[in-house]
Amino acid sequence: MPERSPDPARRSERSRTAILSATRKLSAELGYQAMSIEAIAAAAGVGKQTIYRWWPSKGVLMLDMWGEQVQLQGEFPDTGDVAADLKVQIRGLVELANDPELGPSLRSLIGAAQHEPALLEELLTSIVRPRIEACKRRLRKAQEDGQINRGVDLDIAVDLLYGGFYHRLVLPVTRLDDAFVNGIVDEALRGIGATL
Amino acid sequence: MPERSPDPARRSERSRTAILSATRKLSAELGYQAMSIEAIAAAAGVGKQTIYRWWPSKGVLMLDMWGEQVQLQGEFPDTGDVAADLKVQIRGLVELANDPELGPSLRSLIGAAQHEPALLEELLTSIVRPRIEACKRRLRKAQEDGQINRGVDLDIAVDLLYGGFYHRLVLPVTRLDDAFVNGIVDEALRGIGATL
Repeated sequence: MPERSPDPARRSERSRTAILSATRKLSAELGYQAMSIEAIAAAAGVGKQTIYRWWPSKGVLMLDMWGEQVQLQGEFPDTGDVAADLKVQIRGLVELANDPELGPSLRSLIGAAQHEPALLEELLTSIVRPRIEACKRRLRKAQEDGQINRGVDLDIAVDLLYGGFYHRLVLPVTRLDDAFVNGIVDEALRGIGATL
Repeated sequence: MPERSPDPARRSERSRTAILSATRKLSAELGYQAMSIEAIAAAAGVGKQTIYRWWPSKGVLMLDMWGEQVQLQGEFPDTGDVAADLKVQIRGLVELANDPELGPSLRSLIGAAQHEPALLEELLTSIVRPRIEACKRRLRKAQEDGQINRGVDLDIAVDLLYGGFYHRLVLPVTRLDDAFVNGIVDEALRGIGATL
């Protein structure tokens, strides 16, 4: 690709990528609240108007950046082995949390959402609820396959599996590591009736 | 007690209570970040200097207010029935979270701690770690009593029991209610080997 492409679509895509990447870097460095659209524009080498053309607010930009990370993780795996699938999925989250840029950015986003109701609602709608639903679909399949109890409340199952991640993320008393991933999935699944 | 007590200790105690009560009210209304020492002083009917005499910063004041709430909850119960004890303890937390003043204040405090490393460390040291230790002592007792598996990692057990609370607190997709308390404790205990 030439340095200055004459193709506007390609130039747009380059700007978009630069803006999302600057958002990821600055949100980790400064935190969501201290990060300004001006700073993102400067770091991405674009004008503020370019950002506002695509994103109405800093919150929506931040959520789009996270949306891309979540997309990179792909669909909830289904190999038939529910324990292995959950470990892959939760290990992916743990890797995000331990990434030196993405981890602080995720904590900062969840932190800011506690003071900004509109940001929280958008975070729940665009990222959290769809992921919880994907997990529940996988667990429902495991119920059909006779791998976990049919009677179990799947919201409780999601809390058993994912609650520890958020607990350790926002109140980091104990580490998010591989032993955590294996331990939490094994004990949670035993709780909801899996024979491991 | 007369309206204007001549006893300085008694007057101090009145100021202290008024300051903590104003902190609780304002932190719920404004959030931890927007709340100022000036506003607390005005609401409590004291001078700013009175607050700074006892509390070096807004963070320490907020944590002291929470320390009092935690004290009100008392010791981790031990009736010999580990499931009942955990339900009492977690139900107490759920009641705090559903209190119209205390719930928003707790979410705001956890949110602010995600951007303020010193506040987070003080929150972990003064409140979170001691409570986790108390829970682990109770679980160790249950291990000795043969009520849960001896081999289980107690940090994982704490995550199974408490993670769901923090998950639903900071990402409120599903409600914190009595069905949650009973479900999470029963499934978590089954996971770590209890026969219910």
